[in-house]
Amino acid sequence: MDFIKINYTGRIKDGAVFDTTRREDAEKEGIFDERRVYKPFSVAVGEGQVVEGLDEALAKMKVGEKKTVTIEPEKAYGPRNPSMVKLIPIKQFKQQRINPIPGMPVEIDNMRGRVQTVAGGRVRVDFNHELAGKTIEFDVEVVEKAKTDTDKVNYILERAFESSDEFESKLTANKLTVKLPKSANYDQNLLMRKMSFTAEAFKLLKVDDVVFEETWENPEKKKKEKSDSGDEKSDDKSEEKTPKKSGKKSD
Amino acid sequence: MDFIKINYTGRIKDGAVFDTTRREDAEKEGIFDERRVYKPFSVAVGEGQVVEGLDEALAKMKVGEKKTVTIEPEKAYGPRNPSMVKLIPIKQFKQQRINPIPGMPVEIDNMRGRVQTVAGGRVRVDFNHELAGKTIEFDVEVVEKAKTDTDKVNYILERAFESSDEFESKLTANKLTVKLPKSANYDQNLLMRKMSFTAEAFKLLKVDDVVFEETWENPEKKKKEKSDSGDEKSDDKSEEKTPKKSGKKSD
Repeated sequence: MDFIKINYTGRIKDGAVFDTTRREDAEKEGIFDERRVYKPFSVAVGEGQVVEGLDEALAKMKVGEKKTVTIEPEKAYGPRNPSMVKLIPIKQFKQQRINPIPGMPVEIDNMRGRVQTVAGGRVRVDFNHELAGKTIEFDVEVVEKAKTDTDKVNYILERAFESSDEFESKLTANKLTVKLPKSANYDQNLLMRKMSFTAEAFKLLKVDDVVFEETWENPEKKKKEKSDSGDEKSDDKSEEKTPKKSGKKSD
Repeated sequence: MDFIKINYTGRIKDGAVFDTTRREDAEKEGIFDERRVYKPFSVAVGEGQVVEGLDEALAKMKVGEKKTVTIEPEKAYGPRNPSMVKLIPIKQFKQQRINPIPGMPVEIDNMRGRVQTVAGGRVRVDFNHELAGKTIEFDVEVVEKAKTDTDKVNYILERAFESSDEFESKLTANKLTVKLPKSANYDQNLLMRKMSFTAEAFKLLKVDDVVFEETWENPEKKKKEKSDSGDEKSDDKSEEKTPKKSGKKSD
């Protein structure tokens, strides 16, 4: 199985662009999101990380190749299911202080949907995927392919952590060790990221254990390094430490 | 500075027990909490981890020694401050759907207090510490004292993680490495625990770096180990792995 990076622009056939990895396309189509980093997207081919039709096309492509792939709903987001359109009493929204407006995305009983109409005290919500029933097109280019194990780990890191910069990893037969950058220590989504990273590492790299290493740095050390710049790694640090007295009560 | 473990029972002089590490005392006094583990409490003496009066007494005690320590408010929870009793309009509570009742603990603007009276549309809340102005007594016993660096690390672990069981640690001059048990991986308070552990480790052990190691285990490995019990650590695991096909869409 190959790990590749792709650039893509996905549109509804004869219609709007719904997603792209290319900044210029996002700007041109008016869907530019400044919180997003536009860069090639990592995929393990054939693993269901993209819709089936695109996965099949990628399996036949080479690095550097560009293609426009047209995909019927069956191999994209599935057919539309009319029974997934529901009528919900408006008072259920009012109780949660939500004023439903056509087009508004809502979440009810853990299902995401979109308001279609509001009339006669009832709200029509479509719980089908927005792209269900649509034939879609991808302008896709295979940008690169993982050569080494480290490349593969980095591809998986980018999927879970949005970046592999400053991560260090070591892969042996049964064990993958990943050193996290210090910026990750306070990441509120760290548990979720570790869960998705390990799930993919177990499935795709077949390792038995993933070990995360997190380094926390003493803020006193930083101050010290700043004050004696040029001599960052002296060996007798212990001599220079200032013992601190604390008269504060923490209890 | 010494790291010790103590058992204590704290009471208001001539009054009620407010805290204890001893299960039998908790039961006898009617303050037993089944979620709590009753066991000796780790303290770095002289670091303000307990009230000042107790800290001073502990500095003079030996392992095995028992003592009753009487502490005036000034070296316990401070004097009562009358300006910390405030009158708050009842509508501020109603807006948050809180029905204030005398004795109820409340939190307002990040300050914890206790409702004293409710009258004339106003709620009197006392923001003084419950033990402010009280002379308190501790029946305290020094149970043990840390001998090795590993003991010290374990004492700090128990403060932050409530237990040091299944943790492994290694302390060198500048670096403390801590292997977390697998049970910690999904701990929702992990970030908070790491923050309080590192704060104490930096302050008390004067290390420059704390490295946490977390091991995540492939669930497929566990299944495998169960199925071929008795041959848990065969070397040619890679041969036995079953490649899995996935037709599922995750996107």
